[in-house]
Amino acid sequence: MNQAIETILNHRSVRNFEDKLLTREQIETIVKSAQAASTSSFIQAYSIIGITDRAKKEKFVEVVGNQPYVAANGHFFVFCADLNRHALLAEMERKDVLPSIESTEKFMVTLIDTALAAQNAAIAAESMGLGICYIGGIRNNLEEVQALLKTPEYVVPLFGMAVGYPAKLNDQKPRLPLEHVYMENEYTQDSELFKEQLEEYNQIISKYYKERTDGKREDTWTAQMAQMLERKSRMYMKDFINKQKLDLR
Amino acid sequence: MNQAIETILNHRSVRNFEDKLLTREQIETIVKSAQAASTSSFIQAYSIIGITDRAKKEKFVEVVGNQPYVAANGHFFVFCADLNRHALLAEMERKDVLPSIESTEKFMVTLIDTALAAQNAAIAAESMGLGICYIGGIRNNLEEVQALLKTPEYVVPLFGMAVGYPAKLNDQKPRLPLEHVYMENEYTQDSELFKEQLEEYNQIISKYYKERTDGKREDTWTAQMAQMLERKSRMYMKDFINKQKLDLR
Repeated sequence: MNQAIETILNHRSVRNFEDKLLTREQIETIVKSAQAASTSSFIQAYSIIGITDRAKKEKFVEVVGNQPYVAANGHFFVFCADLNRHALLAEMERKDVLPSIESTEKFMVTLIDTALAAQNAAIAAESMGLGICYIGGIRNNLEEVQALLKTPEYVVPLFGMAVGYPAKLNDQKPRLPLEHVYMENEYTQDSELFKEQLEEYNQIISKYYKERTDGKREDTWTAQMAQMLERKSRMYMKDFINKQKLDLR
Repeated sequence: MNQAIETILNHRSVRNFEDKLLTREQIETIVKSAQAASTSSFIQAYSIIGITDRAKKEKFVEVVGNQPYVAANGHFFVFCADLNRHALLAEMERKDVLPSIESTEKFMVTLIDTALAAQNAAIAAESMGLGICYIGGIRNNLEEVQALLKTPEYVVPLFGMAVGYPAKLNDQKPRLPLEHVYMENEYTQDSELFKEQLEEYNQIISKYYKERTDGKREDTWTAQMAQMLERKSRMYMKDFINKQKLDLR
């Protein structure tokens, strides 16, 4: 196994960081790594905002619902889906690109582009011995995030990423068995088999929690997911995205 | 620079592969690497379909508009955004999760989850000396892809990934300068500065094409992008996604 794969397979989210900031060089290596990712038709449809202002970092702690590691870390990045510079370049080139930019297809493109870049950033950071945690919690209140970051239309802050020197490493949670997720030639349209697979995975997860908590925590993946998904969360999102003039048609 | 970062920074899309299939072990390492990526609230909202059937691979060549490397490669993966098993697990747990699963927020979650996994797969493959190319072209005709893959509702095939032993390496295209993409504390809302930055980048790209084509190709990034975006492409996407019962509310 090579170092890149070792880094990838060794991933766990880190939520406790030492009180030590990243250097400019580390930040630039992470951003350059992000930019090296594949990008749909060379569109490069994202921006990355680093938060260095302490007061602003504390504001983010509030937005995400009191996760202290959003401020207490080595650096905090916000990854934004961004078609704003594409609207601008079209003005320069006198072309009408708005029907395209405002389409669901391009909304998907900018989300995928941003995520590919972010994952490169994550692997680069982890390969340097740093830990990372994605912060989807910024989507709890994108109106406020937008006010903090002054993002214009055609831009959507998608997630944060806390990076820093790990103070504590969590265990790795076992993923769905490979053969549940990986299929060949066609999708397994067999609900009974899927249910069996889910029961099998429940046993793995249940064993994991029991061992980790001295038998105290009883939980399964399906129970966890059903509970999480029963809660309607961030239902304002459609309106917000459309207000940014994305995913409109 | 460590091997992971070297792999990341050395990325270029490969579209010419040797006639040599990946081994089962290589495929599994790539899929396991994908699964090790961060996943929003542990939701693991994707499936990966490997295409081994030659006739089916040829069908994909047609769908994407005659890109022979979609069939001529070491392995062809299709990454699918997938909330289908979550709809199923909710039945098992007798919870109503549909308003949540059908929301724009969860559509974004499943897209981001899938892209993070895919980028891990890409880096893992490249670290083993393989080349990769994302195939967004499968979105040219998702009705046909869906028929080929038999994907059910709550599933959207997002992109393919051709993987294999590189027969020819392309040059790397220079990305937007770091300081255009990376900002601190707030978004640079200054159109004039943005336009200057775009002109600066145009010179870099123009020089790149000239050098690569012995002066034959004259092109800039803004011209390229404006032309690409002026074409309304895949405007059926919103209807398709909604038909899959995603991004509805």
